[in-house]
Amino acid sequence: MTTSLDAPATDGAQPAAVPASPSTDDVTAQVLAVARRAKEASRALAVATRGTKDAALHALADALVAHADAIVAANAEDLERGRGDGISDGLLDRLALTPARIEAIAGALREVAALPDPVGEVVRGSTLPNGLRMRQVRVPMGVVGMIYEARPNVTVDAVGLTLKSGNAVVLRGGSAAARSNAVIVDVLRAALEAQGLPADLVQSVDAWGRAGGVALMHARGLVDVLVPRGGAGLIQTVVREATVPVIETGVGNVHVYVDATADPALALPILLNAKTQRVGVCNAAETLLVHRAAAEAFLPSALTALVAAGVTVHGDDATAALAPAGVDVVPATDEDWATEYLSLDLAVRVVDDLDAALDHIRAWSSGHTEAIVTRDLAASERFVAEVDSAAVMVNASTRFTDGGQLGLGAEIGISTQKLHARGPMGLGELTTTKWVVHGDGHVRP
Amino acid sequence: MTTSLDAPATDGAQPAAVPASPSTDDVTAQVLAVARRAKEASRALAVATRGTKDAALHALADALVAHADAIVAANAEDLERGRGDGISDGLLDRLALTPARIEAIAGALREVAALPDPVGEVVRGSTLPNGLRMRQVRVPMGVVGMIYEARPNVTVDAVGLTLKSGNAVVLRGGSAAARSNAVIVDVLRAALEAQGLPADLVQSVDAWGRAGGVALMHARGLVDVLVPRGGAGLIQTVVREATVPVIETGVGNVHVYVDATADPALALPILLNAKTQRVGVCNAAETLLVHRAAAEAFLPSALTALVAAGVTVHGDDATAALAPAGVDVVPATDEDWATEYLSLDLAVRVVDDLDAALDHIRAWSSGHTEAIVTRDLAASERFVAEVDSAAVMVNASTRFTDGGQLGLGAEIGISTQKLHARGPMGLGELTTTKWVVHGDGHVRP
Repeated sequence: MTTSLDAPATDGAQPAAVPASPSTDDVTAQVLAVARRAKEASRALAVATRGTKDAALHALADALVAHADAIVAANAEDLERGRGDGISDGLLDRLALTPARIEAIAGALREVAALPDPVGEVVRGSTLPNGLRMRQVRVPMGVVGMIYEARPNVTVDAVGLTLKSGNAVVLRGGSAAARSNAVIVDVLRAALEAQGLPADLVQSVDAWGRAGGVALMHARGLVDVLVPRGGAGLIQTVVREATVPVIETGVGNVHVYVDATADPALALPILLNAKTQRVGVCNAAETLLVHRAAAEAFLPSALTALVAAGVTVHGDDATAALAPAGVDVVPATDEDWATEYLSLDLAVRVVDDLDAALDHIRAWSSGHTEAIVTRDLAASERFVAEVDSAAVMVNASTRFTDGGQLGLGAEIGISTQKLHARGPMGLGELTTTKWVVHGDGHVRP
Repeated sequence: MTTSLDAPATDGAQPAAVPASPSTDDVTAQVLAVARRAKEASRALAVATRGTKDAALHALADALVAHADAIVAANAEDLERGRGDGISDGLLDRLALTPARIEAIAGALREVAALPDPVGEVVRGSTLPNGLRMRQVRVPMGVVGMIYEARPNVTVDAVGLTLKSGNAVVLRGGSAAARSNAVIVDVLRAALEAQGLPADLVQSVDAWGRAGGVALMHARGLVDVLVPRGGAGLIQTVVREATVPVIETGVGNVHVYVDATADPALALPILLNAKTQRVGVCNAAETLLVHRAAAEAFLPSALTALVAAGVTVHGDDATAALAPAGVDVVPATDEDWATEYLSLDLAVRVVDDLDAALDHIRAWSSGHTEAIVTRDLAASERFVAEVDSAAVMVNASTRFTDGGQLGLGAEIGISTQKLHARGPMGLGELTTTKWVVHGDGHVRP
């Protein structure tokens, strides 16, 4: 994945009034006005019932399907420009919309409508010794900013999740999908208005290009949280640049550790699933660590199976020494231990023991997900206790670090930070809380 | 409260090796080394039992009492320097330590020991349809940075709360308390070592002055969260400057709204308590809003009572018109609506209705605490739903926004941001979570 922040928007899709080369001050003022309208609009939604919100989500889904032709036509322009810019086939495929894909995107909105409303949940409550009735209740954040890359389905996902959790959203999508996103946003805004809700619950700053994204990152007091979704470059730029609170998502340098006592009948399927079931996702494995005592029995067949699955192995000397004839091992360097390949590549290292595996993970992990395959209870417990990552798997594929798989129903992203949310983020993570205290004239003694 | 960030440390207390004018690069390298040692030390504590942690807290308390003479002697140096620098009597009083105060500070550590351990709490858990056993468990953050102002008791509080929640702490205290803090930190470090725990669980960067604080704010990947405690200047500096995640605390431009139907027998005690029970704290009231229909009956006696309690009233024209003879009303400006006085001053405004009160609060509140006094159920419900603050009080004093008062047992601070923690923060807010998933060879289909 590449960062889209540095790529200027190549068209002036929306709003039409944006000058060709607005000054940074102009952009800042206009983006702050967008954020202010979002904050204002969010007040209406914050007190809306679940019924109102779910009806709106269904209306948005219907509108997308009804306007599929216009969306596909705009998408064709993006695809054509993308081909001209030499975008890879893989990225073009992720960018492409068809009536069937739009139907699926609309279906995701209907699924969000079916989820419980996080707003109003009482997370703590009691009557205090002095008779005060205290409760801590989930309430919407207010305005959520989303900065993301090319896929236009993320636009709709972001809108569905933020609206359901009672928030307004300000979008900054990838410039490669600028036309598709502009039409989608127009369709969604019109549908909201038809439902009697403010159109400004959904706004985009794409028309201001990179400067718009930067202004969004500095809209302190108006944007309550910013969620970047995309590659490491995008996320690091947002984390470094933003003065509004950010939830860091998605970078996964993910490890599978095969312990001395691992059952090979479990280890190989878990490894293959973690590496090859879907590449290019943050919960796919990037490094295999094998206990020295298991290496001779496990690695030769594992390497053969990996290569048969199309995987390029980057291994240390001990790995290379165990490679069967016909299996090529590219010598691994520190860069391999550090890299989130997002491709059919795997770094492989033989380690002396569990401590060495933990040291390697401590040194190189991005804190997303690590798995151990073992039959040793004590080893599993040490691994769970000492690995400092959002998710730890015991005898299961790393691909299960996913909101849908773990029962959250929908996923905003996977947080790799420790504040507010860690691991898969559901609707609840787009809310904050409010303390509500009822008294009868209570004063502090 | 004033910010201490701009004030250079006036002595080279600790460590002795710091050069007189280290370059910024040197300071950064040394502070990063401190943070790295903290991270390393935190690993030992993360897997420590509650028994180990509570025993350590009692040992720290005993050590403080045992070394009270040395601490009081160091504090006398701070007080003497403070008098020379012309520090106010109020601040000198907050800075001063006596054997009795040290006993109280040690007592607070013992109270923290008695609190439940947040680490290990399962906040969510289930067996998924595919048989995976999922649980989300509270774990320590790792390294907590604390940047705060003069009071040396905050040093000990911060250490107690971070250790109990399994974290290492790096402290940057106010330079006015530099000698007191240096001796306290030495006493605590020695006591930790005597307990078989790493001394580096508690470290200070005070010796590097302002540059040390700045380096701490940029120690991304080593400091997991930074908690500034102090005045608005300090907090805004940290929020603007820091690249590590920050929890914003404490600024309270707090409102009391007396509705048309308020019972005067409730309204006056609540107002006086909110304004005068303790000034200089973030949950004290700064502005009184009175519904026009209640103004004539309520304000004259309220103004008389406020002035009798030593309060200076800054009022709008309607307030001034209702002031009884002998009650002076200073004309209020926008600056009064914006100011957190932290003193015996109160801004007073007559508003046309609940909507006008909500508009005023929306425009000027810092999002800390607001109170309504009313007998009207619908008005109370609208106020609770529409005020976007960390805490909302109905017929109770704003002074109840406090971890101790609301049953959290101990308080790290009061968050005015929406991410991670909002309102009073207890031990749980110094933890994050880890998803732990157990399978039997599970792979994703």
